[in-house]
Amino acid sequence: MSQTLRERLLNELDTIVLIDPHTHIDPHQPAARTLADILGYHYYTELAHSAGMLRSDVEEPDLAPREKVRRLVAHLEPLQNTIQYSWLIDIARSFFGFADEHVTRDNWEGLYDAAQRTLSATDWPQQVLRRSGLEAVLLTNDFDDPLEGWDTSVYVPCLRTDDLVFRLHEPAVGQRLAAVTGVDLASPRALREALARLFTRFTARHARACAISLPPGFTPIPICASRAETAWDAICRAPQQCGEDERQTLAHFVFWTLAELCADFQLPFDLMIGVHRGVYRGGVYQGQDLYDSRVSLIQYGELFNAFPQVTFPVSVLASVANQELTSYAWIFPNVVTSGHWWYSNTPAYIEHDLAARLEVVPGTKQIGYYSDMYKLEFGLPKFRMYKRVLAKVLAERFVIDRGWSETRALELGRQVLRGNVDRVFGPAGRAGRPRP
Amino acid sequence: MSQTLRERLLNELDTIVLIDPHTHIDPHQPAARTLADILGYHYYTELAHSAGMLRSDVEEPDLAPREKVRRLVAHLEPLQNTIQYSWLIDIARSFFGFADEHVTRDNWEGLYDAAQRTLSATDWPQQVLRRSGLEAVLLTNDFDDPLEGWDTSVYVPCLRTDDLVFRLHEPAVGQRLAAVTGVDLASPRALREALARLFTRFTARHARACAISLPPGFTPIPICASRAETAWDAICRAPQQCGEDERQTLAHFVFWTLAELCADFQLPFDLMIGVHRGVYRGGVYQGQDLYDSRVSLIQYGELFNAFPQVTFPVSVLASVANQELTSYAWIFPNVVTSGHWWYSNTPAYIEHDLAARLEVVPGTKQIGYYSDMYKLEFGLPKFRMYKRVLAKVLAERFVIDRGWSETRALELGRQVLRGNVDRVFGPAGRAGRPRP
Amino acid sequence: MSQTLRERLLNELDTIVLIDPHTHIDPHQPAARTLADILGYHYYTELAHSAGMLRSDVEEPDLAPREKVRRLVAHLEPLQNTIQYSWLIDIARSFFGFADEHVTRDNWEGLYDAAQRTLSATDWPQQVLRRSGLEAVLLTNDFDDPLEGWDTSVYVPCLRTDDLVFRLHEPAVGQRLAAVTGVDLASPRALREALARLFTRFTARHARACAISLPPGFTPIPICASRAETAWDAICRAPQQCGEDERQTLAHFVFWTLAELCADFQLPFDLMIGVHRGVYRGGVYQGQDLYDSRVSLIQYGELFNAFPQVTFPVSVLASVANQELTSYAWIFPNVVTSGHWWYSNTPAYIEHDLAARLEVVPGTKQIGYYSDMYKLEFGLPKFRMYKRVLAKVLAERFVIDRGWSETRALELGRQVLRGNVDRVFGPAGRAGRPRP
Repeated sequence: MSQTLRERLLNELDTIVLIDPHTHIDPHQPAARTLADILGYHYYTELAHSAGMLRSDVEEPDLAPREKVRRLVAHLEPLQNTIQYSWLIDIARSFFGFADEHVTRDNWEGLYDAAQRTLSATDWPQQVLRRSGLEAVLLTNDFDDPLEGWDTSVYVPCLRTDDLVFRLHEPAVGQRLAAVTGVDLASPRALREALARLFTRFTARHARACAISLPPGFTPIPICASRAETAWDAICRAPQQCGEDERQTLAHFVFWTLAELCADFQLPFDLMIGVHRGVYRGGVYQGQDLYDSRVSLIQYGELFNAFPQVTFPVSVLASVANQELTSYAWIFPNVVTSGHWWYSNTPAYIEHDLAARLEVVPGTKQIGYYSDMYKLEFGLPKFRMYKRVLAKVLAERFVIDRGWSETRALELGRQVLRGNVDRVFGPAGRAGRPRP
Repeated sequence: MSQTLRERLLNELDTIVLIDPHTHIDPHQPAARTLADILGYHYYTELAHSAGMLRSDVEEPDLAPREKVRRLVAHLEPLQNTIQYSWLIDIARSFFGFADEHVTRDNWEGLYDAAQRTLSATDWPQQVLRRSGLEAVLLTNDFDDPLEGWDTSVYVPCLRTDDLVFRLHEPAVGQRLAAVTGVDLASPRALREALARLFTRFTARHARACAISLPPGFTPIPICASRAETAWDAICRAPQQCGEDERQTLAHFVFWTLAELCADFQLPFDLMIGVHRGVYRGGVYQGQDLYDSRVSLIQYGELFNAFPQVTFPVSVLASVANQELTSYAWIFPNVVTSGHWWYSNTPAYIEHDLAARLEVVPGTKQIGYYSDMYKLEFGLPKFRMYKRVLAKVLAERFVIDRGWSETRALELGRQVLRGNVDRVFGPAGRAGRPRP
Repeated sequence: MSQTLRERLLNELDTIVLIDPHTHIDPHQPAARTLADILGYHYYTELAHSAGMLRSDVEEPDLAPREKVRRLVAHLEPLQNTIQYSWLIDIARSFFGFADEHVTRDNWEGLYDAAQRTLSATDWPQQVLRRSGLEAVLLTNDFDDPLEGWDTSVYVPCLRTDDLVFRLHEPAVGQRLAAVTGVDLASPRALREALARLFTRFTARHARACAISLPPGFTPIPICASRAETAWDAICRAPQQCGEDERQTLAHFVFWTLAELCADFQLPFDLMIGVHRGVYRGGVYQGQDLYDSRVSLIQYGELFNAFPQVTFPVSVLASVANQELTSYAWIFPNVVTSGHWWYSNTPAYIEHDLAARLEVVPGTKQIGYYSDMYKLEFGLPKFRMYKRVLAKVLAERFVIDRGWSETRALELGRQVLRGNVDRVFGPAGRAGRPRP
């Protein structure tokens, strides 16, 4: 019974038109141009490298797309068990008419050419969105992105703030901020003004979120004016020589200011908690980051207390932090569970984490999934993977274990897949927090 | 096969008459008086608040029960997915003849009135116990509870010691202790005498356990006499000005003394490990506590070594600590796994944690479940939830995976549900530790 | 469908001839001599002690095997639910013709005698290997093991290095090292030379791995020559008085040197991460160790970066560290997931951890299982337990959830059970790391 039930639920979930609440899509080039843009996704380069491929094989300058694909295909066999490989096959079959079980040295050229024919259609981005059931995607924009030249109702801007929080002590970053805002960054007060101008510019272009990824040790605290000034002065005077202490003070100051601006501008603040950058120094591009799972949301207690009017969609990198996430979202009105991030974005962890969330976090406070994709083609296989797990959990844990009707289970599915995305990131997006 | 098997096992488990080994029942008012006592449970107020209800909506002074229920019902919709909401529906159906799927603005008044009729029966507490298959419940008594006026064979006293360990530096707590014991608390030795008198008084009233909840950072250590004296002197001299250091020394001294007294009086010492109090300061009553899952039972290694004659039923707040709990109970004769506490008391975590315990901890050393309830009506839905998971785990992991007979699986179920409660908390309650 | 599918997969997996990549087998006495060698396994003594048996019951000097078994059997009842007990029954049935459900006071003598008859066959070790489908087993040899007197193609040496890293400050250990290598350990340089001679000797005897178990806090770092010298001088001068700091410096120096030698000698370096020794001081022999699950592979980041040419098969003691392990193996070419160790070697944790690994770690980089056994009889029940879980995960998560053919699922099973053992520990054993 369970399998046909899952099938039925999946088919229904598949009819829902979605908004993808977090992607890295380039709105000027949202879809792949060649198969190399798909196989060049870090999941494939890093796994192929992990299984024996030299980094230089794919990072050679001026490597032609066809050659890049040829080299990667030669290292795909050890990856055939992975869920990431299944996304590739799903893309190949769904979009490029691929009929084989595996992409191999023997058949990749046919696939490459078939992909080429499909991808070169001028309306391909619109096609792939439609065929993937996607209505819009949220982006991840640098703070100095001009935000011009695309339809922001389909490619919705989102202010990414990692550089501002963690690299503002680097002169180049400060110069970019000064340039784009026209503010002379002479003081923390001027910094705040510059940040406020970013928010004005982003919200004018219909930005729907502010977002940041954070290392495991980060613990937001407010910084008093005088301490911020001392740190900022030291950094401006001698950026190369300033110590870790000044840098951290600046990071805390900027982070807290961003939270204040999210309150002022009514933007949700996406927190993606737990990544250590550059752990594997010999790794391929975007394949060097890992984590320390020893992180607690207690570190964010003061932030959640200080900003009851800001909605925080929170992602955690390690599945062992998921129970804290569910508990904090169960207690704090302004904390929302958000998707299944990166190393936890695999069926086994999604199933475990999703089951825990669905049974204790208010149904209105769960953002089911985001794709995190760089190219639109990945929306379909990633959301499909998620929906398969969602159908399994709804079937086994709600319809079977708790005696729910299928209709009721599907309503919950719709709510986490779409309803809450509208609710949190919609024009009037506000989670279920008390109105002040 | 699995579903009908689960059904059969559940039906058998449902026939077992239980003792609830940990509750917050008030023996003078054990059952709900109105539906407000049920909907006022912190699980509903905190979840409703988390989903958008103002705290003041339910914490207004002199709020009439009917009005309180009306307000809460208005915020129940976002909670319909939660397991806690399912307890409410289970209570409404099992006890109040409720026939709808949901409690809504349209039908709550009928439910309120039906509940009223049922709850006003003079023998309702006895009825609800009988209909819930409960023979007795352990309480959680303040140390200065008079322990008079009820049948202690049904409402079994248990000495709760949080105040003694963590708040004895507050003059009011010391005064309560002096008053109830008649001991002048002039020295640590006198303190010990006062604590011993508590044990005498509690055991004379048939208390069956000493219990405490502990923050994640707590690490029990013995305190030498002179250090205890210095700290106690400092605290007595200037309670407002004493430092964190003195307070901690006192906490450690009292905790260790309690363990000694548990040894002397042959009482099990329930440890409930991992809670941070008051994390969400704006939360509703009893809806402010959370945790840091970074806790280890290694912190309790010295305690377990020092008191081989004391049985420690241990609960952990975070499911990620459950493997340590199972391992420590597998190795230490005096450590017993105890229930599924609070944020881990949901089907997904119970299933995961229970499966791990059942396969490695000696069958005699597992206290399956306690309800933690404040009102008797919650015993039925909470134990039923647990038994459903227990039946699932026994069916899937023992009968199917390991080829056990149903009879054998049920024996294990009985042991963790009832047999071990008698064994650990019975009049001669002692876990399977070596007799000295 | 799922159950018959699992059955079919299990039957196929059962035909694979295996190499056990980590055991504590004594090659001079690989099999049990009496049932006491089986029931004397620490899993039974520690669980029986945990459930009430006095340590002295089994640790009495000169205890006759038959009497030891009699005493242990008297305490087996509370263990009947455990997976470890199921290994015992599996052994009794598979090898000794046992036909009852339980070993009890009433039937143990028959079993003892039947075991005796079987175990006394001169070719029993060969028989048990054959009947268990084992072709060879890797050992765990002390660094001064003579490595003489057995067939190293069946009992493959492996250099265990715990003593070298953590106890070289003890004069006795230094003396053993000097004696076996003929090196005067006057300096860190001489130490390195002695260690290199061990590697020469071990590899000459076909050793296939270097292995170590590590406490949760250990963080490998390189030690510069002068610091190593200062520490070694202090230790040599006054071994009793040297501080924790010198000992740690020495441990780090030796550990890093071992990694260098693994690179030079092309040996994989098995890291078994997370054990605290001697936590329960009153515990039975080998039943005193526990852990602190707060450990992160970030502690090993520098090691993995520094030795790209060394394969590190990594085991973690706590299941909560398994996601980090899978992620590090997914990113680092030289990290391989290895088995399910000790407190995580139970079906519930294997299922959870295995499912996570199979879906993201390249198929070539997963060592499915090792038995960790002390006596050959345990290979059969332990591998069978693992294969049952493997069949379950392949059936449910690959064939059913992902639509794989059974053939394909079995190939993955074969790869983790056997193929990768050849690949990593074979004569030319090297995991999927880039060739330099």
